[in-house]
Amino acid sequence: MRRYLPELVLILQRPRRCCSSAPQNLGQVEPLLQFCVDSYYISPGQTNMELFQHGLSCSYGPLGMGLRRNLLDQWWRSLTTSSDQVFGIKTLNCSQNPPLGGAGPLGMVDLDNVAQILGRKELSREELIQQVQELLQRSPFMRTSFFQGALDQFEPSLALVNRRLPFGLAETGLCFQPPGSSGCPGEATLTSLVWFCSPRTSGQWLDHWTRQRLKWWRNFALSPSNFSSREVPEEETEAPVSRGLSIFYRFPWGQKPIETLSLRGNAELLHVHKGSKVQGRDGRKTVPHVVTVTGKVDLGMMAFLSDSLQQLSKVGNSKHGLQQRKVLKLHPALAPVKVALELGRGATAELRQLCEGLMQELKEAGVCVWPGHLKTQAASLEQMMAKYDEMGVLFTVVVSDGTLENGLLQVRSRDTTIKETVHVSETTSYICRHISAAHSL
Amino acid sequence: MRRYLPELVLILQRPRRCCSSAPQNLGQVEPLLQFCVDSYYISPGQTNMELFQHGLSCSYGPLGMGLRRNLLDQWWRSLTTSSDQVFGIKTLNCSQNPPLGGAGPLGMVDLDNVAQILGRKELSREELIQQVQELLQRSPFMRTSFFQGALDQFEPSLALVNRRLPFGLAETGLCFQPPGSSGCPGEATLTSLVWFCSPRTSGQWLDHWTRQRLKWWRNFALSPSNFSSREVPEEETEAPVSRGLSIFYRFPWGQKPIETLSLRGNAELLHVHKGSKVQGRDGRKTVPHVVTVTGKVDLGMMAFLSDSLQQLSKVGNSKHGLQQRKVLKLHPALAPVKVALELGRGATAELRQLCEGLMQELKEAGVCVWPGHLKTQAASLEQMMAKYDEMGVLFTVVVSDGTLENGLLQVRSRDTTIKETVHVSETTSYICRHISAAHSL
Repeated sequence: MRRYLPELVLILQRPRRCCSSAPQNLGQVEPLLQFCVDSYYISPGQTNMELFQHGLSCSYGPLGMGLRRNLLDQWWRSLTTSSDQVFGIKTLNCSQNPPLGGAGPLGMVDLDNVAQILGRKELSREELIQQVQELLQRSPFMRTSFFQGALDQFEPSLALVNRRLPFGLAETGLCFQPPGSSGCPGEATLTSLVWFCSPRTSGQWLDHWTRQRLKWWRNFALSPSNFSSREVPEEETEAPVSRGLSIFYRFPWGQKPIETLSLRGNAELLHVHKGSKVQGRDGRKTVPHVVTVTGKVDLGMMAFLSDSLQQLSKVGNSKHGLQQRKVLKLHPALAPVKVALELGRGATAELRQLCEGLMQELKEAGVCVWPGHLKTQAASLEQMMAKYDEMGVLFTVVVSDGTLENGLLQVRSRDTTIKETVHVSETTSYICRHISAAHSL
Repeated sequence: MRRYLPELVLILQRPRRCCSSAPQNLGQVEPLLQFCVDSYYISPGQTNMELFQHGLSCSYGPLGMGLRRNLLDQWWRSLTTSSDQVFGIKTLNCSQNPPLGGAGPLGMVDLDNVAQILGRKELSREELIQQVQELLQRSPFMRTSFFQGALDQFEPSLALVNRRLPFGLAETGLCFQPPGSSGCPGEATLTSLVWFCSPRTSGQWLDHWTRQRLKWWRNFALSPSNFSSREVPEEETEAPVSRGLSIFYRFPWGQKPIETLSLRGNAELLHVHKGSKVQGRDGRKTVPHVVTVTGKVDLGMMAFLSDSLQQLSKVGNSKHGLQQRKVLKLHPALAPVKVALELGRGATAELRQLCEGLMQELKEAGVCVWPGHLKTQAASLEQMMAKYDEMGVLFTVVVSDGTLENGLLQVRSRDTTIKETVHVSETTSYICRHISAAHSL
């Protein structure tokens, strides 16, 4: 769980319903989406914003790409540092086999070829139909989940572990979604763990993975209680799933499932490996049951953006009464940019050079840096800090003419707004220390 | 460049043509592919091996997935630690716009919908054609490169850098390949940098990036000279590309281009952003030219597998004359598994427990561990070492009853075959030190 130093500000984590007329109500989906565009998380455009709103992959800006990368890294890390035996795999997007348990199958079709057939005047109606059908039959299917790929990989993996159960196959990446109400197929980034275990332990494993996954989501949240798990009601569970659980995030506009866990028995495994030896060992020989754990990364990104966006109101000290600022308090492990460099007063050319050196040092230490010192437009330091807070940048480093004299610069923290004076030679280690401390909270 | 300690073995990096009749001739493509299957880099199956052979994405096993991951990480690291300004983006696989400069466009089609139309008996030939055409027109196109996505992202990115040139947009992931001779569309993992710079510097940037990329490939190679760059002959350069360079890897069965760099002018950029302000600043205002740098990750993986696979022949000490062993000397940064744990003589249960603790410690330090201590089949330590050498595992840690008494275990290096005695409490730091030293070679 995360802790933050107390702030001398009044925290209104989410504006109340009564002020929903204000354009800044970040508890509604449209202002949040616009905020994501403005702070470089998603690319502009109405269609793009709608994709993200529906929990699908959209075109991400540099910060969104960084957040997605960090989220996938943390997911991978959580699986590979656990004591459970998990192997990563990478299977194909397209396959000659139709997807399992499939909604309408999506095919990848050579459009020129279809157009050619449709244009051939000498073909009769029946010949035309036959030729198009033949072409479509040769077209590969797009995957809609990682499940089929993992089942295909079961046999070599079983050999790898000397038939020892339990073990899991993990994969992340894109899956394609059959056209929904919009009529257009979409794409989604998913995380998938397919877990093979003995039938008598499968229920326990389902609970184990639900606890693990819920803990993982909550670990990165400002308000962990907005993440919760719930059994899927029996009447909504479709065979071959015998029991299901979902992890929900409570968006201000409603609950959405961000991860689903299912107990699927072994019927599909036996179907895919007809006639082969699929028995594993867990004490005694047994055909394993399958537990699937499937997370929605795009929706998870929106959950963390919504969770970490705070509207802070400073009381007093301003002619206009309440002064508002937005801060994106993403967990330090998820924040895509850790440090922004800025110029204070002083000789611009020399200070830029100093920043270049510092930037290189930070980059080599694996710290993602925002080159604020390169900007050419005039903006006050105050304005820039506000901008970096909206981007979720953890630290802003300000160099000024004093730095050229005595080597001292200022490091300002997003979460505490406190400015500390640090020597230029110690800046990288200062920042790395703070980031890794936050990681292990 | 990499250095290895001398070995008391006769290194035959690649068997000569004269012994090509031997099934072990790893200088030929089929034995190399079979080796990749046997050592868990790619999944079994003739079709899968053929995909990999053609430089396309295939279904990767756990080690292949690790190698792919490490390669993509290193690519990303090389861009983000350079002093050049590069932003990562993530664009969509599917788009309503046909791919630029396109070979036959691939569409993602709802197959059930087409089948429904084809099955409607009341439709005349013309109505049928019209309905299928309308459906296909609504179907999104699959991307064949990252170029279009980067051009689309140019405008918000230009705002991000305050119109300051040069800068680049980087993306990695899957692209789809139009059907080739096989008649079936394929998928490939690509790395893409699209670099925007002033027209007068674009030629220099093309050379800069060619040098950088060649250096990058060579950095991970045992035989750097097998990587080379070459100008694309003018007669093979198609407009709008005005100059092109390729980086080749010399496979034993022939040269293959693994990365392509092109100078593309600004016609496509202007076409995509018709009427918008696309001028940047580099001293003066200018419409940037575009340099594209596109690498083939799947083929790159095969290049490094081919480069690092050595057949070593030990002279003497064996009844059968020459003893051969295969070692996959992947660069430490690329090797997917860094450490394997093994049991020597001693009480199995206690030693397993010791290994569990050690494994957890190594995993938490971010070291990828192979749990050899869990295997249930009888195999000699010698056999296991040979197996780990084929998998490219950097270190094998052997615990035995001595370890339970005095805490000492043996760490055996893949590259030197030397066994060192290390205390169990220092094993993780010993291994981390060696890996990071190798990283910085």
